[in-house]
Amino acid sequence: MNTPNPQLDAQGHLKHFLTIEGLSRELLTEILDRAEGFLGVAQQAVKKVPLCRGKVVANLFFENSTRTRTTFELAAKRLSADVLNLNISTSATAKGETLLDTLHNLEAMHVDMFVVRHATSGAAHFIAAHADPHVSIINAGDGRHSHPTQGMLDMFTIRRHKPDFANLRVAIVGDILHSRVARSQIHALTTLGVAEIRVIAPRTLLPNQVEEAFGVRAFHDLSEGVRDVDVVIMLRIQRERMNSALLPSEHEYFHLFGLTEKRLSGARPDAIVMHPGPINRGVEMDSQVADGPRSVILEQVTNGIAVRMAVMSMCIGTQNLNSQGRDEFLNG
Amino acid sequence: MNTPNPQLDAQGHLKHFLTIEGLSRELLTEILDRAEGFLGVAQQAVKKVPLCRGKVVANLFFENSTRTRTTFELAAKRLSADVLNLNISTSATAKGETLLDTLHNLEAMHVDMFVVRHATSGAAHFIAAHADPHVSIINAGDGRHSHPTQGMLDMFTIRRHKPDFANLRVAIVGDILHSRVARSQIHALTTLGVAEIRVIAPRTLLPNQVEEAFGVRAFHDLSEGVRDVDVVIMLRIQRERMNSALLPSEHEYFHLFGLTEKRLSGARPDAIVMHPGPINRGVEMDSQVADGPRSVILEQVTNGIAVRMAVMSMCIGTQNLNSQGRDEFLNG
Amino acid sequence: MNTPNPQLDAQGHLKHFLTIEGLSRELLTEILDRAEGFLGVAQQAVKKVPLCRGKVVANLFFENSTRTRTTFELAAKRLSADVLNLNISTSATAKGETLLDTLHNLEAMHVDMFVVRHATSGAAHFIAAHADPHVSIINAGDGRHSHPTQGMLDMFTIRRHKPDFANLRVAIVGDILHSRVARSQIHALTTLGVAEIRVIAPRTLLPNQVEEAFGVRAFHDLSEGVRDVDVVIMLRIQRERMNSALLPSEHEYFHLFGLTEKRLSGARPDAIVMHPGPINRGVEMDSQVADGPRSVILEQVTNGIAVRMAVMSMCIGTQNLNSQGRDEFLNG
Repeated sequence: MNTPNPQLDAQGHLKHFLTIEGLSRELLTEILDRAEGFLGVAQQAVKKVPLCRGKVVANLFFENSTRTRTTFELAAKRLSADVLNLNISTSATAKGETLLDTLHNLEAMHVDMFVVRHATSGAAHFIAAHADPHVSIINAGDGRHSHPTQGMLDMFTIRRHKPDFANLRVAIVGDILHSRVARSQIHALTTLGVAEIRVIAPRTLLPNQVEEAFGVRAFHDLSEGVRDVDVVIMLRIQRERMNSALLPSEHEYFHLFGLTEKRLSGARPDAIVMHPGPINRGVEMDSQVADGPRSVILEQVTNGIAVRMAVMSMCIGTQNLNSQGRDEFLNG
Repeated sequence: MNTPNPQLDAQGHLKHFLTIEGLSRELLTEILDRAEGFLGVAQQAVKKVPLCRGKVVANLFFENSTRTRTTFELAAKRLSADVLNLNISTSATAKGETLLDTLHNLEAMHVDMFVVRHATSGAAHFIAAHADPHVSIINAGDGRHSHPTQGMLDMFTIRRHKPDFANLRVAIVGDILHSRVARSQIHALTTLGVAEIRVIAPRTLLPNQVEEAFGVRAFHDLSEGVRDVDVVIMLRIQRERMNSALLPSEHEYFHLFGLTEKRLSGARPDAIVMHPGPINRGVEMDSQVADGPRSVILEQVTNGIAVRMAVMSMCIGTQNLNSQGRDEFLNG
Repeated sequence: MNTPNPQLDAQGHLKHFLTIEGLSRELLTEILDRAEGFLGVAQQAVKKVPLCRGKVVANLFFENSTRTRTTFELAAKRLSADVLNLNISTSATAKGETLLDTLHNLEAMHVDMFVVRHATSGAAHFIAAHADPHVSIINAGDGRHSHPTQGMLDMFTIRRHKPDFANLRVAIVGDILHSRVARSQIHALTTLGVAEIRVIAPRTLLPNQVEEAFGVRAFHDLSEGVRDVDVVIMLRIQRERMNSALLPSEHEYFHLFGLTEKRLSGARPDAIVMHPGPINRGVEMDSQVADGPRSVILEQVTNGIAVRMAVMSMCIGTQNLNSQGRDEFLNG
């Protein structure tokens, strides 16, 4: 426990949000509790709190994602921050050196937070390791590694339906091998102490020795895997992997691993179905499930704004204020 | 009159603004009166009113138009709303199903209003029919069908110069067949009770049986058509239609249907000239007319912001508040 | 002195900021002093002043530059202005006539300020000459002509390290021939009265008769040119000029004109090194110099926001208020 976590300051407060791995149950719970408070902001006539007024958040998306960028932009604006959207093609910053020059220039402009999406695993950690002390980094997805705000919005959504993590069985279905979302979910579920985590996928889409490495149970049959679970999390299939050596056709995938009401019938009667979006209807699941009573997919989107507001305000509170002032900042 | 208008709530207030067709003269007049009040905001030192503070307006432009998007963005910002600009290529949402998933995701983020531009007639109605009750849709142009804020800013501009619609003769010149602007203008002029509407175009650019279908008089000669009119509205020629079977060359079009001082001389001495922009100088009209004393083309641009502020604030007032609160919202 | 300066109003206040040429030492000093006051804004918890609240600044970038656009956007937002980013391809406005129509449309929307970047020398002057009286134009770089905010942020950076311009020797190194930055720096340094300006470049990258035309001393050897100077300003090499008739390879350029610690050793012991960014490391200078103790390159970026806030607020103060009100606006 003596290796310092690069995400935390000396007092153990969240300074960057790079990965769920290594964060304590107390800190994850603080994020969830804080997000609960922000959920109400969207119901107000004026959907804003002044917590981050005058702060500047720069969206650095080296990998294009209008959807994820929009949720961070909305979260920042609800905190009253100013938002800079920077379109940075990976080619223009092919050399790490130039990436750092870009970073240091934005720091010199007194940007307070970088929201980073990058195709390379470890990019957000790299940037955090080289950033000035007054800047916070939020990982919005790096390669196959981590997508921690997605992981936390999924935990938040689960907790609103199933408040006690200790008794839950959760199944994650799909391309575990390539999924940063699955990695973040497994770390979060483990830290929050769920009873059992299952992964369900064809053998070609599971990491080697996944059971030992991640502390999960592996299934290769969907109906068997979802039996008696409380939560089914479907992953998005990247269509560019279809028809490769790893994956059969879309039709064949749906035939074997697509979620239908019939397959879902073995799960707990009050089981919920989740998906990070956007859904490929008829591939990962059919529309009856996607739009059905167990689906909480659109709640995930709503919750994503509140969770991102929580993480962003916690990091900015840590960055800019001493320990005492931080608590006043966050609660006052 | 018992079919409910999808643009109105149960109290008859404007909830969406999709088309001018089917709206009452009272409601159109309410829009014009309300816009009159907003015209002064642009003269203030601080060009903002707090009416829509904390609301989120998303510009969903499936068809690119920097100019129209900018006027909606400015109108929203003058109402103190936050604006999201989403670049959505039609290809990415080729399936209606996916368009609705995009829509429902933005609704889940608590976006309050969608400003929709789409190449397909009926797109804004389709979105309004499937949107959550807490969201308003503004049609910023759909296919050949409708462009209602353009129609209303034209009415507003006419009324500031000619307050009594009942006595007016108005000529619309150009590609009536393909023009959503012309359709919106004709509906508005008819509802507001002008004395006579003329359309002037080559036969290839007029709808079949236009006189019966739209209640207008058709002319194929420009000088004859503008005789004694109070208002001349020029339409923009889409250059991609030039040299097709429908249209001769630009030079030939100007020779036959381009507006010059000489041709305008038959109109009323105080006639005004309008154009929705951007002008193709030397095609629809020459610069002497475009920049001359009868041109109110730049006033149309200024008025467009006020009219859009009026429509946006009316819809948001209707969406979010009960009938009594709505009036307080809009007037207080 | 009887030819009116198109940048000044009748009282001699700054209305547009197009070029440093022709402005008085008093006015340049006013900009520097005002920027000094804005430098502290970036240190505040809320990095905003309400000076330009409700004003609209439109970034008209006909030439793409995310970096420069971002600094103007941040400066405008710190002044509490609203910002419109307009992507205008030069092709869409190939005709001057159409450029003016675009301009007049934005004026009709009551935009208060245009920040213009254009590949053609004189573009900002042309726009200012045709703009409505209520609009201010800031030149963000036009062709080879001028980049006055870059010139002033360089002066600001120099003054913070060397308060007395009268005793300074300043060397500018690189592609003087094509550089709008160098032109603006030379005008500013001359007006502020530095003791000596040197330009250092291969003969192919110096204007004809540069010494007479610009009042500078020319050098073709870097070590000789930087001897005893207080300030070394490196220019950015446009890579597209490499391997042309004008420039040898990058390797060869660095060999002859790249700044190293060794070459810098002949300068004054407290000399500072500047670069407008982005740096081509290993071409204009090596990383030891770029990241070394004499480098003030990142300070230039920070100072650029304060200088742009100064220029923008001065122009908007002049535009909108009479002489007395202007002073209250700027100081109150």
